[in-house]
Amino acid sequence: MSDGGASETKAEILEATHRALVEHGYADLSMAKIAAEYDGSQSLLHYHFDTKERLIAAYVRQRRQNLESEAASLPDDPRERLDALLSLFVDLEPYDGSSGLMPAIIEMYGVADGTGELQAELRATDELARDLFRTTIEDGQEAGAFTDVDAEAVTWLLFAVHESAFIRELVDEDTTALKEALEQVVLAEVRR
Amino acid sequence: MSDGGASETKAEILEATHRALVEHGYADLSMAKIAAEYDGSQSLLHYHFDTKERLIAAYVRQRRQNLESEAASLPDDPRERLDALLSLFVDLEPYDGSSGLMPAIIEMYGVADGTGELQAELRATDELARDLFRTTIEDGQEAGAFTDVDAEAVTWLLFAVHESAFIRELVDEDTTALKEALEQVVLAEVRR
Repeated sequence: MSDGGASETKAEILEATHRALVEHGYADLSMAKIAAEYDGSQSLLHYHFDTKERLIAAYVRQRRQNLESEAASLPDDPRERLDALLSLFVDLEPYDGSSGLMPAIIEMYGVADGTGELQAELRATDELARDLFRTTIEDGQEAGAFTDVDAEAVTWLLFAVHESAFIRELVDEDTTALKEALEQVVLAEVRR
Repeated sequence: MSDGGASETKAEILEATHRALVEHGYADLSMAKIAAEYDGSQSLLHYHFDTKERLIAAYVRQRRQNLESEAASLPDDPRERLDALLSLFVDLEPYDGSSGLMPAIIEMYGVADGTGELQAELRATDELARDLFRTTIEDGQEAGAFTDVDAEAVTWLLFAVHESAFIRELVDEDTTALKEALEQVVLAEVRR
């Protein structure tokens, strides 16, 4: 099998993993269920990814790489870029079409403790999200679009609202009041 | 069996549920594993709580009732009470001795979607937490200890930081920067 073939196979397995996560969640996931989505053999999954844990870590890593690519095409204007990041991380737009993925992701945080590779991938993804917020605020400050707030502190609060919005979604709670609070207490201090 | 006996049995089963959750997490939990902690029969669990889902919902309800009792003994002074609430919900002191419970709780949010009773219990617990923050801020405002901030907005941000701190704990990340952000951007505007 050529390298090209192997990486194509891996990509197909990761797509199958996505479908299986949306359908079954994380806790009930098994290599057999992923193989069923892939229409391929379970042994091929083990050949390419070893264990379920390593496959899931690879899936999270790929999602982060996708996010990095998307981030490159965000608007240059810091005000518009901040709005786009809020759509991604507070309105949770990427989950609109596949809300079944949200329970699976939060379950990953539940099991991440003690499973080093998955924990590291989740942390790296969270750090990327915060980097995007932080650099956007700093760029806006340099451009004179944003006030002289503590970019690091604002970033942590934006990220906290992201995580809270995610969990509120899972218990089917309206996040309007949470978003208004963010706007009123935090963002009103940022935007000129 | 007298009513007293039944409620004692239920209490013992809920204690066993707590131990089983700490040990196994939520996803891997079964009535058999809870029965093993209880040193009793699985059929007795089903007799008192019907299904695993209803037993877990009853467990969450009991935790909320315990929180309500604890809240009654919080300091009267709004400044001290706010500090106590921050210890509970941001420093996550209640989990110090049983951090194994945290993954189990976050897993519950992952499966709550579509399981009506558990979702309702989790939401009610979250509403209680926010009520405690909101009334404490309002009491402090009446007493002249806190500024005239929007208590509702501040409550949502305090709660968001609570949820974020909880997840940061699960990926073993230091929450110092998050707490500093809360202090600097939000609480500095509240405290006189």
